[in-house]
Amino acid sequence: MNAPTNPTELLARPVPQALLDALNQRFGAQCSTALAVREQHGRDEGSIQAPPPAAVVFAESTRDVQDAVRLAAEHAVPVIAYAAGSSLEGHLLAVQGGISIDVNRMHRVLAINADDLTVTVQPGITRKALNEAIKHTGLFFPIDPGADASIGGMAATRASGTNAVRYGTMRENVLALEVVTASGEVIHTGTRAKKSAAGYDLTRLMVGSEGTLGIFTEVTVRLYPLPEAVSAAICSFPSIEAAVRTVIQTIQLGVPIARVELIDANSVRMVNAHSKLALREEPMLLMEFHGSPAGVREQAEAVQAIASEHGGQAFEWASTPEERTRLWTARHNAYFAAVQSRPGCRAISTDTCVPISRLADCLLDSVAEADASGIPYFLVGHVGDGNFHFGYLIDPDDADERARAEQLNHQLVARALAMGGTCTGEHGVGIHKMGFLLDEAGAGAVDMMRAIKRAIDPQNILNPGKIFTL
Amino acid sequence: MNAPTNPTELLARPVPQALLDALNQRFGAQCSTALAVREQHGRDEGSIQAPPPAAVVFAESTRDVQDAVRLAAEHAVPVIAYAAGSSLEGHLLAVQGGISIDVNRMHRVLAINADDLTVTVQPGITRKALNEAIKHTGLFFPIDPGADASIGGMAATRASGTNAVRYGTMRENVLALEVVTASGEVIHTGTRAKKSAAGYDLTRLMVGSEGTLGIFTEVTVRLYPLPEAVSAAICSFPSIEAAVRTVIQTIQLGVPIARVELIDANSVRMVNAHSKLALREEPMLLMEFHGSPAGVREQAEAVQAIASEHGGQAFEWASTPEERTRLWTARHNAYFAAVQSRPGCRAISTDTCVPISRLADCLLDSVAEADASGIPYFLVGHVGDGNFHFGYLIDPDDADERARAEQLNHQLVARALAMGGTCTGEHGVGIHKMGFLLDEAGAGAVDMMRAIKRAIDPQNILNPGKIFTL
Repeated sequence: MNAPTNPTELLARPVPQALLDALNQRFGAQCSTALAVREQHGRDEGSIQAPPPAAVVFAESTRDVQDAVRLAAEHAVPVIAYAAGSSLEGHLLAVQGGISIDVNRMHRVLAINADDLTVTVQPGITRKALNEAIKHTGLFFPIDPGADASIGGMAATRASGTNAVRYGTMRENVLALEVVTASGEVIHTGTRAKKSAAGYDLTRLMVGSEGTLGIFTEVTVRLYPLPEAVSAAICSFPSIEAAVRTVIQTIQLGVPIARVELIDANSVRMVNAHSKLALREEPMLLMEFHGSPAGVREQAEAVQAIASEHGGQAFEWASTPEERTRLWTARHNAYFAAVQSRPGCRAISTDTCVPISRLADCLLDSVAEADASGIPYFLVGHVGDGNFHFGYLIDPDDADERARAEQLNHQLVARALAMGGTCTGEHGVGIHKMGFLLDEAGAGAVDMMRAIKRAIDPQNILNPGKIFTL
Repeated sequence: MNAPTNPTELLARPVPQALLDALNQRFGAQCSTALAVREQHGRDEGSIQAPPPAAVVFAESTRDVQDAVRLAAEHAVPVIAYAAGSSLEGHLLAVQGGISIDVNRMHRVLAINADDLTVTVQPGITRKALNEAIKHTGLFFPIDPGADASIGGMAATRASGTNAVRYGTMRENVLALEVVTASGEVIHTGTRAKKSAAGYDLTRLMVGSEGTLGIFTEVTVRLYPLPEAVSAAICSFPSIEAAVRTVIQTIQLGVPIARVELIDANSVRMVNAHSKLALREEPMLLMEFHGSPAGVREQAEAVQAIASEHGGQAFEWASTPEERTRLWTARHNAYFAAVQSRPGCRAISTDTCVPISRLADCLLDSVAEADASGIPYFLVGHVGDGNFHFGYLIDPDDADERARAEQLNHQLVARALAMGGTCTGEHGVGIHKMGFLLDEAGAGAVDMMRAIKRAIDPQNILNPGKIFTL
């Protein structure tokens, strides 16, 4: 196994004054070199730190992005796209220096094609703002990572969330992209047609490329009709194993459950404190069913029967939209609730995903290791997909504690890979998981990724030092 | 618009005797240079012809594929993977010479992971053989192009078929691949985990790469629980428009219909003759519903109501598995029924796919053009996805007729692209659609594909002259 990468080993490239002058001339007030602005753009929600970028350009159009990239390319200086800043693996860190291109002002909805169940947006719009903007159509966009992330960032990291078990991830839901390449050209990948066999799947290559192959300036995603009926339920279990076995059986039977989240007793306790709830502090499944009224009833009955075989407590139903929102908001806030439970801490978040038949084994061994470590942690999981997150809550100034948490992560990833799984279900590789990627994909596959990167970005200016080193 | 490519413009590279000797030495009876064998491997089901490959290697293992590729690479000679031979766009033609690597003997099921809903197979197994092999598990593999194609070939062309409206295409259903690269190395892409954000999506890049980036030696695909209830129905309509409007409304309402195929009156007539059926010779929808008994009933009622608004005749139900199989076999045989309806003809098959809101407009204008041309044709469509096929039945020796049919295809593609669609929903680009790909994706995107190709296959030996020219 390869150890997690230490970003301080990577060298920053100089940003010449001539580039800063040219950016200032082209962008004026849309460009900032103020330290506070640079620092804000040089970090994410993860636990790794690096010096900030040399400047921040606030792009307002595709043309702005093109011009910023062209100027940077002239000086072979790195560019890093920035929107919500909610990534977890150091994606936004200027580990090789360079400039940040902030696309938050590019947050328009460009075209709602309700009849085709598609929408085209600029990359800076967040998932919540998108859903607000399309509310009147009777459609929704289901992908929901914990944070209110930007659609561009979600595409760049191949994000997913709680709805993926039914609706897929950004992999399945991005139809087309407008991309600014390393030379500042604009290309379009994909079309609004639902399927295509037209050449290499550049859309899927770009989705999950973490800013290393291009900067997205338009994103077309699939939408779904709001289900006629929705019902949510929570169910407590005597053990994590009982909860997980319930999920495995549900998936294997083909019940089209929309969401099924595992929340361990630690997380329930933290969520109760943070969101002022009084949930039973035991391992819990939070579920949601979408469909026709009869279909939802049928699904719920099937899952209730499975749960009760595994000692699940009687379901508690959240029948009104308000109750549902409250429960799911609590789930989405689990990460923040956990971080607040230990003042000054940072969370090291794991992200393994395994074939569902191995989920119980993978989880239970890892829970035992985490319990034995004494490090405070929480555990939540998109268990319908075999994906779960431990959050080890470490004191960032305690090197020993960080090392022990990384060791837990290391053991967990090794276990997941041995079971045919992946080191990252939805957070991406960034800086933090480069070693794990090599273990998972093998040197030959990573070399192929490097060859693609060199072919598309010969100067290595697009978010360099992420996914792999060249 | 770019005209369809003429493959005779492409030059064959010489295959040196030293390579043939080396292949003979390594493979013995597993290698053939007999003309009949070479000719069989130098054609597909499409309408374009080219000289055959210089030799055929019958690979029985990944190692065999590696060795054949390595020997070819030493002489910079093209290699073309071959399995069912059912592609339609000239994918298998040795337009630049070279050797064919036949993987039909690699047809084993390597691992059925029923609990995870996945199976790993060798590339030569066909879709029907795969479904036969997993029948005992209660699971099925839904992707069903017209022919009994190989899983390797289906992955290489990003195939789909009648079930894609509900289950997706090969894009969504291939989880992982073992690939022999241009240098004869083996890499593994993807894992059996349901989702992953681990680096570039090499699996999706390989799916649809038409043999130009690697030869697949193992394919892991998703399986689905056989639905508890299945029911199929046919419904005739007074016009193609009425049928298409029924489909559009069904999709927009989010009815999870499993299959919905349009069959025009010409096709019904040909299918009746070929499959000894007595279907009403009017535009027809052939539909299938999957789910629980109640769910299937609910879906069928919803679609019946929509159909009757558009003048659809009362549904005729196929309630037994035998009746269903008969109907769907007839649909799958439509292509062959059509080709047999005009002795000696070849079909030029179109494959456009448009956003569903534009389906009626695109179809109706193209039907009018085809009717006016006087060329016999049939029309079938996976209309739930916005994808449809005209088959122009031409006399292959009549250059004028071929030119007029290509002109119809040309106009159809231009129309589809103007509507935000694609020139190929599921057949791939091959030789035939290179010009269309350039129109659709633009020079910048095709240049990016070329850059990727050069980076991964610097000698251009993997099925050269397909998708684009270098």
